[in-house]
Amino acid sequence: MEVEVKIKISLEEYEELKKKLSIICKEINETEMSDTYFSHPCYDLAERDEAIRLRRTSTVSGKVISELTYKGKRMEAGYVKTRNEITVNVENDSTILQLLRALGFKEAIVVRKKRTEFDCSSYIVSLDEVSGLGTFIEIEGKEGCGPDCVMRARDSLGIKGTIERKTYLELLMEREAKRK
Amino acid sequence: MEVEVKIKISLEEYEELKKKLSIICKEINETEMSDTYFSHPCYDLAERDEAIRLRRTSTVSGKVISELTYKGKRMEAGYVKTRNEITVNVENDSTILQLLRALGFKEAIVVRKKRTEFDCSSYIVSLDEVSGLGTFIEIEGKEGCGPDCVMRARDSLGIKGTIERKTYLELLMEREAKRK
Repeated sequence: MEVEVKIKISLEEYEELKKKLSIICKEINETEMSDTYFSHPCYDLAERDEAIRLRRTSTVSGKVISELTYKGKRMEAGYVKTRNEITVNVENDSTILQLLRALGFKEAIVVRKKRTEFDCSSYIVSLDEVSGLGTFIEIEGKEGCGPDCVMRARDSLGIKGTIERKTYLELLMEREAKRK
Repeated sequence: MEVEVKIKISLEEYEELKKKLSIICKEINETEMSDTYFSHPCYDLAERDEAIRLRRTSTVSGKVISELTYKGKRMEAGYVKTRNEITVNVENDSTILQLLRALGFKEAIVVRKKRTEFDCSSYIVSLDEVSGLGTFIEIEGKEGCGPDCVMRARDSLGIKGTIERKTYLELLMEREAKRK
């Protein structure tokens, strides 16, 4: 179960938070992520508030990790989002892509972002630069850090930005729909 | 592309072939395999002659490998079967099982077998003891060993059994249907 809050921040706040977090927390990762979302062969995943995502993560050291994730329906608890997630590591993203296509899944949209992650003991903070969407901060509670704990983390970091309830996928789809 | 022939053999022939193969070929593996086949959420895979299989292989040394395979439509070339296969190694079979269930796939049948594999340079031979079906030998051509080469291998090994065109999955489903 994932418990997280996402906040849209300005580039200025992004830079400030990056400095602050590198002092008070532990930087654990700087990665480039390419998230491919798929449509289901027989029903509308968006309508059910589910998603299937193939994530390819490249670390600064050149390591590449591929994982396939099912995201279940969101349950809102105030501003904090919780949803069931099932993730499997896969050895090769191009083979799993072929396999998904063979079963009728189709690539719907790709979300590209640069992510810097910090471990702040009871929660993880990600600073995201999302291609086409701007800069965001995400706070994800670890085991035992539920919705209240995540909101306290936001307050203690003094984040000024606006809470964004939508996923990057939804924001990008809205943007595409507006363009048409 | 998989090129293979499967032959139903008696337990006596199975024992004889095991001895012969351990002399003229190289034994590469003795494994227990549990193959779970799934039904697709929106169409009949059997009707399309496709299959999705989660294989869990345990070696005698205690190593466990999990892989997910899509099997495409068979193309018959005489007695030899060729079909497109897409396989990905997955780190954890219980997680991929949860993920498949979440996407609407359902476990249809489990095929359990003990397999002894031999490398005979241009082809691979598998001696199978299949739970509920009996003993079989499968000859699979390596790169460059097509249908003719696979049939010559059968002749040179002097195999007396009957060629079985059906998959273990189909044989087990027939057996279940008869029971009802």
